[in-house]
Amino acid sequence: MISQKLSKATKNMKSSLIRELVASTRNIPDLISFAGGFPSPKTFPRETLSKLYADVVLNEGEQILQYGASEGDPLLKEELLKWEGYDLSPEQILITAGATNAIFYMTSALLDPGDVIICEAPSFLGSLVAFDALGAELCGIPLDKEGISLTVLQDKVHELQSAGKKVKFIYTIPDFHNPAGITMAYQRRKDLIEYALAMNIPILEDNPYSRLRYSGEAIPTLFRIAFEEYNNTEIVTEVVSFSKILGPGLRLAFVKGSKTLIERMCSWQQKVNISPDNISQRVVAHFLAEGYMEPHLQFIQDFYRPYLDKMLTAMSEHLPAYIQYSKPQGGIFTWLWLPQDMSADLLFDTAKAHKVTFIPGSKFYPAGQEQNNCLRLNFSYSSLTQIDKGMQNLGKIMTDFYT
Amino acid sequence: MISQKLSKATKNMKSSLIRELVASTRNIPDLISFAGGFPSPKTFPRETLSKLYADVVLNEGEQILQYGASEGDPLLKEELLKWEGYDLSPEQILITAGATNAIFYMTSALLDPGDVIICEAPSFLGSLVAFDALGAELCGIPLDKEGISLTVLQDKVHELQSAGKKVKFIYTIPDFHNPAGITMAYQRRKDLIEYALAMNIPILEDNPYSRLRYSGEAIPTLFRIAFEEYNNTEIVTEVVSFSKILGPGLRLAFVKGSKTLIERMCSWQQKVNISPDNISQRVVAHFLAEGYMEPHLQFIQDFYRPYLDKMLTAMSEHLPAYIQYSKPQGGIFTWLWLPQDMSADLLFDTAKAHKVTFIPGSKFYPAGQEQNNCLRLNFSYSSLTQIDKGMQNLGKIMTDFYT
Repeated sequence: MISQKLSKATKNMKSSLIRELVASTRNIPDLISFAGGFPSPKTFPRETLSKLYADVVLNEGEQILQYGASEGDPLLKEELLKWEGYDLSPEQILITAGATNAIFYMTSALLDPGDVIICEAPSFLGSLVAFDALGAELCGIPLDKEGISLTVLQDKVHELQSAGKKVKFIYTIPDFHNPAGITMAYQRRKDLIEYALAMNIPILEDNPYSRLRYSGEAIPTLFRIAFEEYNNTEIVTEVVSFSKILGPGLRLAFVKGSKTLIERMCSWQQKVNISPDNISQRVVAHFLAEGYMEPHLQFIQDFYRPYLDKMLTAMSEHLPAYIQYSKPQGGIFTWLWLPQDMSADLLFDTAKAHKVTFIPGSKFYPAGQEQNNCLRLNFSYSSLTQIDKGMQNLGKIMTDFYT
Repeated sequence: MISQKLSKATKNMKSSLIRELVASTRNIPDLISFAGGFPSPKTFPRETLSKLYADVVLNEGEQILQYGASEGDPLLKEELLKWEGYDLSPEQILITAGATNAIFYMTSALLDPGDVIICEAPSFLGSLVAFDALGAELCGIPLDKEGISLTVLQDKVHELQSAGKKVKFIYTIPDFHNPAGITMAYQRRKDLIEYALAMNIPILEDNPYSRLRYSGEAIPTLFRIAFEEYNNTEIVTEVVSFSKILGPGLRLAFVKGSKTLIERMCSWQQKVNISPDNISQRVVAHFLAEGYMEPHLQFIQDFYRPYLDKMLTAMSEHLPAYIQYSKPQGGIFTWLWLPQDMSADLLFDTAKAHKVTFIPGSKFYPAGQEQNNCLRLNFSYSSLTQIDKGMQNLGKIMTDFYT
C-alpha cells in the first residue's frame, strides 16, 4: 500500500552498493577484509570519554539533557576555534551529527534538483548517494598525483555552464583522499581556490583525515589557505569529522564557512534534527578544554603508522609489478590502479573465494562515469599479520587472474 | 556571494516565529513564562544516566563508539518492543535522532513538492515548518473536544482529491495535544483509522506525551488500535520521543510502521545522519533492560501532577469567565480560547510589558489558516508559585485588555 505513496526521490534512491558487497562477505570464516572504512576500535579513548560522559551528565545534566541550540553547543564552538587557532565569529561554525549530516545540510541549502555538483572521480560514496538523493547531477573530475585535475575541471565547468547548467559547488577531499589515498599538493590547493574565486563557485572541503598524518609535513587545508592567504572565509566550507579521531558512534562533526551559508544550514538542522546530541557535544568540549586532544592525536598517529608502513611494504613485496598504487602518508586507505583491461569487479569475486576482500573502484564513481580497473584497500582495521598475509594472497590472486 | 546560490526551498524557508518571540523576552527580569515547551530539568534521571553512560562507554566502547546500524541499535529495538509489548519484526522499527528527525524522514519518503499533508489546526509548529521546507501544501483541520474533526477532514480530502491533489498523510498528535491540550477520544481514534483505511491515507501519529498522564485512564494509541483491533501495522506510523521522558538533549526517538516505509525512512537516515548516536541508544537500551523506566515514569507523573493541578486551579480562579480552556489530564500544555474579537497576538505585547508570556495561538496554524483568538500555556517549566502569580497577572491583564 505505502509503496504507491513514495516520493519520486525515494523511489529512485540508490542503496549503497558497498553495504551489499560487504554484507555478501559477512559469514566467510577467516576472511581478511580490506573492504571497510572503519577506524580501529583500539584508537577510541574509552577511559577518558567514560569519565567525561559520567561527569557531564551528572554535573551539567540539568542544562545538557535539555534542548540545546540548533547552532551547536557554544562552549564546544569556543573550544573548536581555540583548537584550530581561528579568530572567527561563532556564527561561522555549525556543529552537526557527523560529516554526512553537514554535507546533507550544505547540499539542501544550495541545490535545486538538476543542479550540478562537481566531485572528484573517484570520491566518497556516502556523499555521492546523498547528493544523488537530493537530485544533484554529478560531474566527476579525475585525480592525478597532485589532486583534482584543474584543466579537466575548467573544461567541464565551461561545458556545463554553456549548456545552461548551474554548478552549485565543488566537493573535494584534499587530505588522504577516500578512496584514492591522494593528498592534494599545496600549489594545486591555491590554484583550485583561485579558480573557485574567479568563477564564484563554492568549495566543499571534506576533512575527516587531515589529523591522521603519520609522516611528512602537513599541508594547510583549503579553508586555512583561503582564510590566511586570500582573507576569504566564504569560498571554502570545511567539514571536520570526529569519527576517525574519537569514534563514529558519537556522530559529531563541525563545519566552518560563510555566515550566510552556516545560518541556512542551521535552518535545515532545525527541521531535520533540532540540534546534535548535547551530551556528546559537551563531552568533546571538555575533551578539548582539558587538554586530552593533542596527546590523543599523537597516540592515534603512533598507533596507525605501523599499519600504513606494513601496507606499503606488503604492496611493494607482494603485488605484481604492473599494479600502480598511491603511497599515502596518513589516512586509512590506499588505491590501486590495475592494467586497463583488468576488472576489479571480476577480481572481487575471485578474491572473495580466496578469503580476501576489498572494494572495487567502480563503486566510488558517479553513475555512468565508472572506472573498473581500480580498487580501494583499507589498512586501519586488520592486524599487521593479516595485512601481510592478505596482500600476499591478493598478489597471488592477481597474478593467477591476469594471465 | 553565497546568497545567490541558495536553493529555492532554502530561500523560501520560514524561520520559527516562536523562537523569535521567545528571544524577544529573554532579557526581561522576573518574567513568568508560559511560552516554552521544555520539560522540567528536575525530571531528568541524571544519576542513573551518568552511571549508564560511564559503563556503556567503558565496557562496550569498542563496539558502541564504532559505526552503528542505520536502522538503530538492535538491542534497543528489542528492549523497545518488550517495553511496549509488541510482537513486531525489528524491521518495523527505526531509531532516529529525535521525533522531528523521524517526521522529516517520513515526509522525505512520501512527499513530492506540492503534495498535501493534512494536519490538525492548531498543530506542532516544529513539524509544520519541516513539512513546509520539504514543499508540502498544508491543510489544517479544526479540533473539537474529542480531537480532529472527521466531518471537516472528509470534506477537505474530497475537495483536495477532486482538485487532483495527492494527500500523502494525516499528521495527528492524539495524546495531550501540542498546543491544544486535547486527547483524542477512543471512538474518534477508531473512526479516524477506519476512514484512513477506507481511503488508503497513511496516518502519522506523533506521540511525545502519552506516558505523561497524571490522572484518568490511558487511551490506546492509534498504532495500537490499528494493530490490535484491525490487525494492521501499515496505516499508522507512530513516533515516540524520549525528549519528555529522559531529556531532549539525548536526541532520541523511535518510529514503528510498515516494513516498506521504515526501510525507505532508513535509506534517508543513511544519507542524512548515517545513524543516530550509538552511545545514547545503548544507554537507553540499558535503562529499559535494567528496569529503570517504570519507576522513572511514575516519578515524572508524580512530579508534574501538582503543576497541572495548580494550572487548572489558577485558570479557574483567575481567568475571566469568557475564556474557555482545555483541561488536560497530562502533557505539558493547556490551550485558551478567547472571545472571537480578542487577539492573542495583541495581548502578547501587553502581557510581555507586564512580565507574563505565552505563545499566541496564531503561531500554530498553517500559513493563511491562522486563528488569532487563542493561546498556549505551558505548565512544566515554571514553579507552582509562578504558575499562580502568573495566571493571576494574566487574568488581570486580560480583563484590562478586553473591556
